[in-house]
Amino acid sequence: MKNSKNVLKYLIGKGSINNLSELLSSHKQNTHIYLVDIFFKDNGTLTNSLPIRSNDLLFFVDSTDEPSTNYINNLLENIQNQYTTFPNAIIGIGGGTTLDTAKAISNLLTNEGKAEDYQGWDLVKKAGVYKIGIPTISGTGAEASRTCVMTNYKTGLKLGMNSDHTIYDQLILDPNLTKTVPRNQYFYTGMDTYIHCLESLNGSHRHALSDAFSHQAIQLCREIFLSEDMMSDENREKLMVASYLGGCAIANSFVGVVHPFSAGLSVALGTHHCIGNCITMTAMEAFYPKEIEEFWKMADKQGVDIPRGIAKNLPEEKYNTLYNSTVIHEKPLANALGQHFADILTFEKVKETFKLM
Amino acid sequence: MKNSKNVLKYLIGKGSINNLSELLSSHKQNTHIYLVDIFFKDNGTLTNSLPIRSNDLLFFVDSTDEPSTNYINNLLENIQNQYTTFPNAIIGIGGGTTLDTAKAISNLLTNEGKAEDYQGWDLVKKAGVYKIGIPTISGTGAEASRTCVMTNYKTGLKLGMNSDHTIYDQLILDPNLTKTVPRNQYFYTGMDTYIHCLESLNGSHRHALSDAFSHQAIQLCREIFLSEDMMSDENREKLMVASYLGGCAIANSFVGVVHPFSAGLSVALGTHHCIGNCITMTAMEAFYPKEIEEFWKMADKQGVDIPRGIAKNLPEEKYNTLYNSTVIHEKPLANALGQHFADILTFEKVKETFKLM
Repeated sequence: MKNSKNVLKYLIGKGSINNLSELLSSHKQNTHIYLVDIFFKDNGTLTNSLPIRSNDLLFFVDSTDEPSTNYINNLLENIQNQYTTFPNAIIGIGGGTTLDTAKAISNLLTNEGKAEDYQGWDLVKKAGVYKIGIPTISGTGAEASRTCVMTNYKTGLKLGMNSDHTIYDQLILDPNLTKTVPRNQYFYTGMDTYIHCLESLNGSHRHALSDAFSHQAIQLCREIFLSEDMMSDENREKLMVASYLGGCAIANSFVGVVHPFSAGLSVALGTHHCIGNCITMTAMEAFYPKEIEEFWKMADKQGVDIPRGIAKNLPEEKYNTLYNSTVIHEKPLANALGQHFADILTFEKVKETFKLM
Repeated sequence: MKNSKNVLKYLIGKGSINNLSELLSSHKQNTHIYLVDIFFKDNGTLTNSLPIRSNDLLFFVDSTDEPSTNYINNLLENIQNQYTTFPNAIIGIGGGTTLDTAKAISNLLTNEGKAEDYQGWDLVKKAGVYKIGIPTISGTGAEASRTCVMTNYKTGLKLGMNSDHTIYDQLILDPNLTKTVPRNQYFYTGMDTYIHCLESLNGSHRHALSDAFSHQAIQLCREIFLSEDMMSDENREKLMVASYLGGCAIANSFVGVVHPFSAGLSVALGTHHCIGNCITMTAMEAFYPKEIEEFWKMADKQGVDIPRGIAKNLPEEKYNTLYNSTVIHEKPLANALGQHFADILTFEKVKETFKLM
């Protein structure tokens, strides 16, 4: 039986980021490491407002792609070369990629070795450095989860450090920080919550509390994405809550059919996670017929474009790659379709599904 | 701005109590203190199944009334006189009273002094002994809250140890344990969740995450108490979840008009908390008109009796006591009715409300 760990503490509300300095006051003797999404590099408004002291270090996290083990290892080395005292706080500020990067760095600072040594379940031996997560876009649930997704391009393994030590000690959920998110991206990332919650609820690996989190997160998504303006002040705060609850839900259950197909798109065509999920949703008639209808209502209501036809006419070897990198995700597919999912997801069925997108 | 702390870990599901021994395996060198609701004293089924070792101590908690500081102090002295090694785990198994008692004992074992020294906010200096909470009735939310309600009969002060240290390190949410709850009590206690969540949502002191917890807890209460059998396997599990979520909600907001009136009944007439809430609900037409209607639907559907007329014809001095012990609850009343709540809750209005019950 799985023992679920919660994020230890959270602050929520407009302007709550202004409490960061107070939160750090009990950790003031050593270096703080700020890992900030590169999205905030050019406009200094956010970084200028942070309580960065002369011995603290600020790094911008390249969120163009999801983190690789290589990227994490290089960043770790940079940090280790530059700090004056051993860090006692890591502050991750950004989207899922940045939040996950901060988790990995925190674990690696106290546990010896490389990022790839900890890809798997419960391999992290010691608690990482105290870490604070501050999301600036809502939907991935990375703020609540016990993993940090990383790809090892040498082995092809995309797997995080699944560990209780990966969970944040403190969150700051400040909806002011999501004001500047581009509209389409806000929708794609927000729908990650809707999608992993619907996958969880349609799967067999769940419990009554993860169901409650999923139901509430989906309800909030409905209120937000079927309203006139998904980015109103109130809706941005609600989506921050939905993202957190969705993260709590998925940390205690599995995803289903969407995420494996989306991972296929990512491997074969380089499609990013959240837009990949939305593209996949358009072809889920056979698996989630009710949800696909609601998905389109939301996209139409918000006037958001979902790219179509990206896997319609591809060379045959691409379909092989798509197929292999989809069906490799046994746990979520078995969660959704049972142990014999391969009988349903034949090569022809998978190919046909990609062509529908 | 309030920094909210979560329960650290939780196990959920039928039979999850069988994992208690494994949870305690990292604490095996010292004495464990089991505090079990007196409800389980005569029938040994529960206590016989616990992994109690020869040097561990088992005490039955008298849950006839809510804990007094005196009761806690005496229990603490008993424990201190009997343990062979300093306890490193407290296991509270029972309803709100037992769960709260275990929290207080945990804090007092590591912090010197008496229970009454810690009535208030953030007075507990050190972390208490590692504690596991195992609810056997659902609704109070005591498993999730940062307080343990205690009455000091010398000073008349009913106030808990409001502290992050009061929060459980581990919960076991096992719906098998609520099978033996008497039907009426199951309803009264379950409705505590419904009531404190509706009070929270109708108040001014809230945030978006506490709202989400409240909405989901109320939704679950609807599903449970408007169904054919509120005590089905599925519903008992759902109510355990609702209780936990309601506890998380109320830990981040305030109650409203119901709890102060219910506290008045408790002081003036000795009415217990959960049944007192239900009795109060019957007179809340002026404050929660929609909710009172739904409340009656639920009570009727489950065929549960709500005692009527208990404050209809009382001597005048009883109404004085009722009035004083109601309006003393300034925080929740201001949360519900604004700073000038006393202009609304005149003596006549309060008396008339009690007569409606």
